[in-house]
Formats: sequence, structure tokens, C-alpha cells
Amino acid sequence: MPRTGQGRNSVELTGHSIIAGRDVPGAGEAWRGVVAATGEPRGPRLRDAAPDHVARAAELAAAAARDYRALPAPRRADFLDACAEEIEALGEDLLELAATETGLPPGRLAGERGRTCGQLRLFAGLVRDGDALGVRVDPALPERRPLPRPDLRLRHVPVGPVAVFGASNFPLAFSVAGGDTASALAAGCPVVAKAHPAHPGTCEAVARAVTAAAERTGMPAGVFSLLVGRGTEVGQALVGDPRIRAVGFTGSRAGGLALVEAANARPVPIPVHAEMSSVNPVVVLGGALSDPAALAAAYVASLTNGAGQFCTNPGLLLLPAGAAGDVFRAEVARILAGTVGQTMLTSDIADAYTRGVKRWAVADGVTVVAQGAPGEGPYAPAPVVLECDAAAYAAHEDLSGEVFGAAGLVVRWSGDEELLTLLEGMEGQLTATVHGTDADLATAEVILPVLEERAGRVMWGGWPTGVEVSHAMVHGGPWPATSSPGTTSVGTLSVGRWLRPVCYQSFPDGLLPGELRPDNPLGVSRLVDGVLEPRS
Amino acid sequence: MPRTGQGRNSVELTGHSIIAGRDVPGAGEAWRGVVAATGEPRGPRLRDAAPDHVARAAELAAAAARDYRALPAPRRADFLDACAEEIEALGEDLLELAATETGLPPGRLAGERGRTCGQLRLFAGLVRDGDALGVRVDPALPERRPLPRPDLRLRHVPVGPVAVFGASNFPLAFSVAGGDTASALAAGCPVVAKAHPAHPGTCEAVARAVTAAAERTGMPAGVFSLLVGRGTEVGQALVGDPRIRAVGFTGSRAGGLALVEAANARPVPIPVHAEMSSVNPVVVLGGALSDPAALAAAYVASLTNGAGQFCTNPGLLLLPAGAAGDVFRAEVARILAGTVGQTMLTSDIADAYTRGVKRWAVADGVTVVAQGAPGEGPYAPAPVVLECDAAAYAAHEDLSGEVFGAAGLVVRWSGDEELLTLLEGMEGQLTATVHGTDADLATAEVILPVLEERAGRVMWGGWPTGVEVSHAMVHGGPWPATSSPGTTSVGTLSVGRWLRPVCYQSFPDGLLPGELRPDNPLGVSRLVDGVLEPRS
Repeated sequence: MPRTGQGRNSVELTGHSIIAGRDVPGAGEAWRGVVAATGEPRGPRLRDAAPDHVARAAELAAAAARDYRALPAPRRADFLDACAEEIEALGEDLLELAATETGLPPGRLAGERGRTCGQLRLFAGLVRDGDALGVRVDPALPERRPLPRPDLRLRHVPVGPVAVFGASNFPLAFSVAGGDTASALAAGCPVVAKAHPAHPGTCEAVARAVTAAAERTGMPAGVFSLLVGRGTEVGQALVGDPRIRAVGFTGSRAGGLALVEAANARPVPIPVHAEMSSVNPVVVLGGALSDPAALAAAYVASLTNGAGQFCTNPGLLLLPAGAAGDVFRAEVARILAGTVGQTMLTSDIADAYTRGVKRWAVADGVTVVAQGAPGEGPYAPAPVVLECDAAAYAAHEDLSGEVFGAAGLVVRWSGDEELLTLLEGMEGQLTATVHGTDADLATAEVILPVLEERAGRVMWGGWPTGVEVSHAMVHGGPWPATSSPGTTSVGTLSVGRWLRPVCYQSFPDGLLPGELRPDNPLGVSRLVDGVLEPRS
Repeated sequence: MPRTGQGRNSVELTGHSIIAGRDVPGAGEAWRGVVAATGEPRGPRLRDAAPDHVARAAELAAAAARDYRALPAPRRADFLDACAEEIEALGEDLLELAATETGLPPGRLAGERGRTCGQLRLFAGLVRDGDALGVRVDPALPERRPLPRPDLRLRHVPVGPVAVFGASNFPLAFSVAGGDTASALAAGCPVVAKAHPAHPGTCEAVARAVTAAAERTGMPAGVFSLLVGRGTEVGQALVGDPRIRAVGFTGSRAGGLALVEAANARPVPIPVHAEMSSVNPVVVLGGALSDPAALAAAYVASLTNGAGQFCTNPGLLLLPAGAAGDVFRAEVARILAGTVGQTMLTSDIADAYTRGVKRWAVADGVTVVAQGAPGEGPYAPAPVVLECDAAAYAAHEDLSGEVFGAAGLVVRWSGDEELLTLLEGMEGQLTATVHGTDADLATAEVILPVLEERAGRVMWGGWPTGVEVSHAMVHGGPWPATSSPGTTSVGTLSVGRWLRPVCYQSFPDGLLPGELRPDNPLGVSRLVDGVLEPRS
């Protein structure tokens, strides 16, 4: 059992699946994690969970579901808080491990850990408040004519066990104990997480923290499991298991679509909340070009941050044709030339980046604005910005797709009509950003409704990387940015994806769940006869 | 142009589709509506909308979508109110027409009209209040360390044009201007409704009322269209049109599943909110058998009401084995023997009922408790109640399916364990009901969580037919009761199925929609930094 460091709780890895608190060695061919920077194998040997391990995790999750959802809210909240504490207790070891596996800098990972634990605590607060229950009460109207109204009380209940597939680019905040796990546990759903093969050690370490938190706070054991799986078999088996009731996924479009297809093919289909891909258009209007150097510096910083490996990376920038735009472009070229590539998350991702950039570069009408330098090691390709006009962009469908990494495409537009046509042709996005000033308001008023129809988050100024975890955040958007445009995967609103409404009609007080009782003993906010009563 | 009556606004039928306010005669083979009681053709000849008509309706809906959603809330609310007024202005003519086409009694249809118009007005109120917008505000924290928080404001926006497929059994409340249309229009989505071939005249009359309301209140013309279609072609073309963004459906499981499949096969899949089928289990516990005559009378009344053609019809009753249950059964037999069949909605539905009852009756272990008498005409089959024990029920999968109409299956159970096994094996339902007294609370506490996991509405006593239209109602449930367990098709919560959240980051006040402005000029309820502020 290799030891990787010296945190308060040390990070000890076995390479096993962890099913309802128990280590379960896998079956079949052994494989290992790798050092992102070199591709060298590292950590214990892993073997994928066997089909009966998948079934066992789902079975125990289902067995835990009723007890878990019936727990008093403060108990569930304590569990979420304990998850954060246990993750923090792993100390620097966890950050070093994640840095080794992903190539992300420890500083960035420290921030991500803060976000991950803050997210767990935010959901703990949501559970304590009871706001997510969406309680509604229509009291009986026995005297109403022609028919009396029965007593009707609504709350939201958890859908049941949830399968979570984390992302390679957020080994903490969007992986085993990331957004989907936190929101599902907050909703009252047990979670079966699949370990990401690009950071299996980090997944195991975090899973051990969650398992410890579950034990410490007395949760039913099946509330959380981790399954090791390198290929698609474990994930497909998990999504196909009848006891799994919903899926959370963050990753590639191909990966997300495969899960959606599997979920739809079940005898009882289930929702897949997949966050897939986005180029996050940034529209630069004329007024924003008054300080081209500052704008260019901010653009390049956002584009190259973390090797550009963000779902909200500004992959597409729409820049006015003409002299002012040319100056901005020259500034971008100057600044980008000074950048150095960072190690990407995996060799496959680095290869896909290099191939994608080549594909763009050879398209008719596309020119290279500038390149940075490759970084150290084989998997740190150079950042690059390319440029074309609106006609070339429209002529090559490939240009509207995502190249994951620090590759930016600048499309030059002439006149509001051309800009509008570009935007109208755009598929669903996580974000859309407009840079402008008061001089641009007329254009802004025309394009903002178009962006609003195509994105989950619309920004005025700023850059889309950096997603606040809060109540008013939306990290979602129309297909194909996500498979479930009605929800978000970041922020407290995301708890709703794991809930469904149930109405209780004419229940005696003694049989009602606490939050629905007439005297509102839990003090939750309620909509009473259509009028909102805040929590007390 | 035949005239069917003398309301304030007369009901004049052409048999045409109505696309964005214009009459559009169809193409292809002519067909006609029928008198439900006799099967005789009636009303004008109809021809299905041609593919280019479908495309035109979708195109005009999409063209209207941005203007419609940008209208001030009171304007949209006025439109909904005007729909109610125009439907009422059709007077008795509408009820006579619907009664002829569906075989439903005019008295029942008068109630249904009241519900339909009340529903439109309830949604008008919801639009005026702005509660459905789900506004959330996280104000900027410029001094926060290590990073400032940007200003974040969330509201829900309409998804775009919605296709509505009404039900045969609610020609007013769940058809052209029924629940789905009312909630979609309230959400800000244009509607393209497909006329139901079982009541095409009623559909046209109501569509003319909606069209008149749209004209009178100055709505963009494409906000509403009606398409005539007898087979599956028009519906499939509509769901496949890229401009349609969501689907509402109420009807058979086969019909719903076909639409779900078509929607999933689109290049850009869309959600289908299909309410499909349910047997609405009613669990009778021992204590409830103290007044068997009253309970039996109420059961038979609910079962046979409207020829049993309700999605919430109590198709399955779980009755204790033993003497007390036998007395209840004898009362049911006595009362049911005095009932007379009513004309069913269509000859196909009557045939399916007769076939379904036969299928049940020949299953091993199933006996007929009692039958009523057939009613007048060829399509008024006798109500029937059959009985079997838990083993026979488990042995024949067919017995757990829905026989649409006044056919009840009574399953006798012995002991809590057998009851629990029965309930655990049950698929998703719209409703589940428990009849019990204080003496049954121990059993109730065991089975209620099981029912809650399987139904959208759980009742203590009473009968599931009769669905209140209010804030706390849920008319939905797990698959296969519906294809979207997270929503409801009745009550104000249903507006959420046509909405998606959008976050506005760092917007200048002048560009924010009214409901998101810092001074909250529309006085909508908001979640500010996680704290609910009721509307002013």
C-alpha cells in the first residue's frame, strides 16, 4: 500500500472500488494511473469493477435510499459538512496527488479544494433551511361550492440512487465529491460514483474521505460507493442498472451522448444530466476596443488559464472587422507569443488538442494569429489563436465545434446583420459574453435576446472562466451544451435535478412529513394558497 | 359551413387547420368526426395538415416566440383571461358539440369548461405575480477575498414553441386550450396544438376562441396554431420540426412512447412531457372496512364516473382477504349490478375496453365479482369488477396494466408482508390511495413510503378521480405514468416544464429585464443571497 504523503489523514491507495464502505478489489486486466506530465505509470494497480460489483453498489444504494431520505435534515447536512472536513483533513497530500495525476498546478488545486468544500457546506446549509423542498400548501376548503377542496400539501422527494460521472478537468470540484455528488446527497439521493481513469488516485482518496464522513455521521452504508472503471463497460452497466434513477455527467459530447442513449434504452428510462461541450462565444462590440491592450491581456489570460481546460473556456471570440479590431488582434498576438503551454490532463486530451488545432488551421480562410511556446514534457502543446471571417466560419462546420484546450478562434464580423446571423446560427452554449459600452447599447439590445436563447449564463463584460458557486448561478444551457437545459450543475438550484414533486392529499397531521405539518415545525418556506411565506 | 348552435359567439366549423390566425384547408383524403353514441359521421369534412402546413405553423410559432416572451406580464395574462372569456362566449353550443363528439354528458362538460377557464385564469394570475420566474439574486461582493463575487441574477425563460397533444377524455380541460396550452402560454411559449381526431369540432371551436383572444389582445399571430391530423404523420412531423422545443402529451402509453422516441431521435432532442397511463392503486386497510356499504358505494361511483375514462380512475383495489373484505366485495357486487354503461369516447376505446376485460377475465385465478348492464348504443359496455389473489396478480403481468374504462380489479391480500410485496412490485403511478383508520397507522407507516416512491399524489382516504387545479397539486409520477417525473401536468407548478434558468452576470441595470433590476420594479418574489423575499 504506497503512501503518498503526510496529511492529518494520510492518503493511502489500494486501487480498489469502495462499495458501501468496503474495499472491493476489481477483476480483469490490471491498469494504472499515470503522471500527467510524463505519462509514466504511478500508484497501485487497478482493476475494473466486475458486473456484480456494479450491481452490488446499486443494490446497496437502493437499500440505503429510504433510510437516507427519511433522516432529519440536520443529519444529512452534518454528513455533507463532514465530507468537507474529511477532504480537508487529507491535507497537502491530496493536492500533490491530484497535481501529479492531472498536471494542474497545486495552487489551482488548492483553490478547487476550497470550492469543493465550500460547495458541500453550501448544500449542507440548503438542507438545513429546507428551501429545496419546495413546499406548497393548499388548505382544505370544505365549504367551497360546487365541490369542496381537499387539503393538498406538496413537497419534493429524492428520485433515488444517482450515478455520478466526474470530469477530468476538475478532479475535486467536478469529480467524486464534486457538484453532482453534493447536490444529489443534499437532495437525499445515494450516490454511486465512477472513478475517473485520468485521476483514479484522487478519486479513491476523496471516496475514502466521503466514506469516513458517512461512517462518522452514521449514514446508511450504501449512501456512497466508488466504482473503478477504465473503459465504458462499468459506466454502461451502472446506467443500465434498474436501481439507478438518474445520472450526472460532466465531460465530452461523445461520452455524454453514449450515456443518454443507454438511459433512454432502459425499460424504465431515466434522466441524464450531462454537461457536454461549449465554445462560449465572446462578442466584442466596437466600444469595447478603446483599450485593446487590456482587453487582449484579459482574453489571453482567460483562454490559457489551466491550459484552457475549462468547459467555459472562451473558445470563440467575435471581433469587429476593421482597424480597431486589428489593433486588438495585434495585442493578442503579442501577448500570446509570450505564453507557454501547460501540461494537459491526459495524453489523449493533448493529442486531441493538437489534431483539432491542425484541423482548424488548414480550413480555407483560417489564419494563425499567434502561437505561444510548447511547455515542458510531451503533453504541453502551445496555446494558439486563429482567425477567419464570418463567411469562412459559416463554410466550415468544424470551426463551430469545441477544441478543448487553449485554442481560440477569432471570427471577424462586419455590421450588426452579419453578427446577428453568426449568433443565430449558434448551437446551445454554457455561456455567452458581450463586451461593450454605452455606445453599443443598440446592438446589445438586439443580440442579447439571441444569446439568452442559446446560453445558460449571459455576461456583460468579464470572462466566462470562473464559475461562482451560489444561488443565482446557472451552469447549464440548451443542447448540446447540456442534455438537460432545465437545470444547472453548479449552484443550489442544481438540487432540483434530483427531486420530483409529490402531493399529499387529505393526510392526517400525524402521517405528514414534518415539513408539511400545518404548524410548520421545521419553519421551512412555503407557498400557502399561492402566497410565499419565507422560512422562520 | 354548418352551424351547430346559438351561443353569443356561434360555433362555426370549417374542418380546417388554423395557422397563426388563418384558415388553412388540409390535403389528402377527407375524413369526418363522428357522433360518439352512434359512430355516425358528423360535421365538416376534414383533411390532415400537409407537411408544409406543419412547417409553417412551427415557423410562425418561432417567429412569434421572441415578441411573445418579451411582452409585459400583464399583456400575456390578459391573453389568458381572454381565452377563458372567448371559450365561455361559445355558450351551450360548445358543450353540445363536445357532448356529441365524446358521449360525455353536458353536465360533466359544463364542469370541465369551468375547470378549463378557471385554469386559464389561475395561470393568468401566476403570470401577473411573476412567481414562476423563480428570480434569484446574488449581489456583487467586490471586496470579497481571494476573489470578488460578480453580480449574478437568475430568472427562468421560456424554452420556445411547444407542441401540445390533447387527450380524448378531457375534450376541454386537457385538449386544445387545456392544461398544457395554458401553462405553456403562461410560461411565454407559443403553442402548436394538434386537434384530437376524436373531437375535431370541439378542437376547432376552442382554437377559434383562442385565436380570437390572441387577436383581441394583440398577440403575435404565431402564438397559437391548430393542426388537423388523424394519423400519426402530422404529430410526428410536428415533434420532428427543429423549431419545436418541447412537447406536452396526454394519452395512451403507445402514443406517448412514440413521441418520446421521435423527440430523442432529433438532431437536437427535446423533452416530451407525456402523461401516459396509471392504474391508481387504492389500498384498503382493515380499519376502513367498518362501513363497507359506504366504502363500496364510493368506490363504484369513482370507478364508473364518466365511463371510468379518467387517468386517475381507481383501476386496482387492494382488499384484505377474509370476511370483512368479503362483505365489502358483496356490497360492490350489489351496487355495481345496478349500474349502466355509458357511451365511451370512441368505438376504438370501447373495443379496447371489451378486449381488456376479456383478457383479464380469462386469466387463471381471476373471477368476475359483478357486472353492470351495457348502456344504450353499441359503445356503452357494462362496468365490471374482477377479483384475484396476490399470487394470481403476480403471475399475470397483464393484470397490472391499465384497462381504460370502468373496469376494476380487486386484489385480495393477506398480511402486511404480502401487501408490501404487491406494492413494491408496482410501476410508476399518477396516484396511490390508502383507506384506513387510526387502527391501521402501523401498516400505513410502512406502506406510505413505498407509495410515495411510486406515485405523484398520495391520498389518505377519498378517491383519485377529481383533480384539483391549484398550487399544491401534482398530476404526474414516475415512469411509465409519465415520461417526466420531475413535473406535473396540472396546477401552477406545471409552468416549470416550459422554462429554463438563465443567469445574467454583471449586467448594467438598463439592460436587465424588469424582474431582475435591483429596485425590483415589478415587485416579484426573489431569493436574495439565499433568503426568500415574498412579492410586494
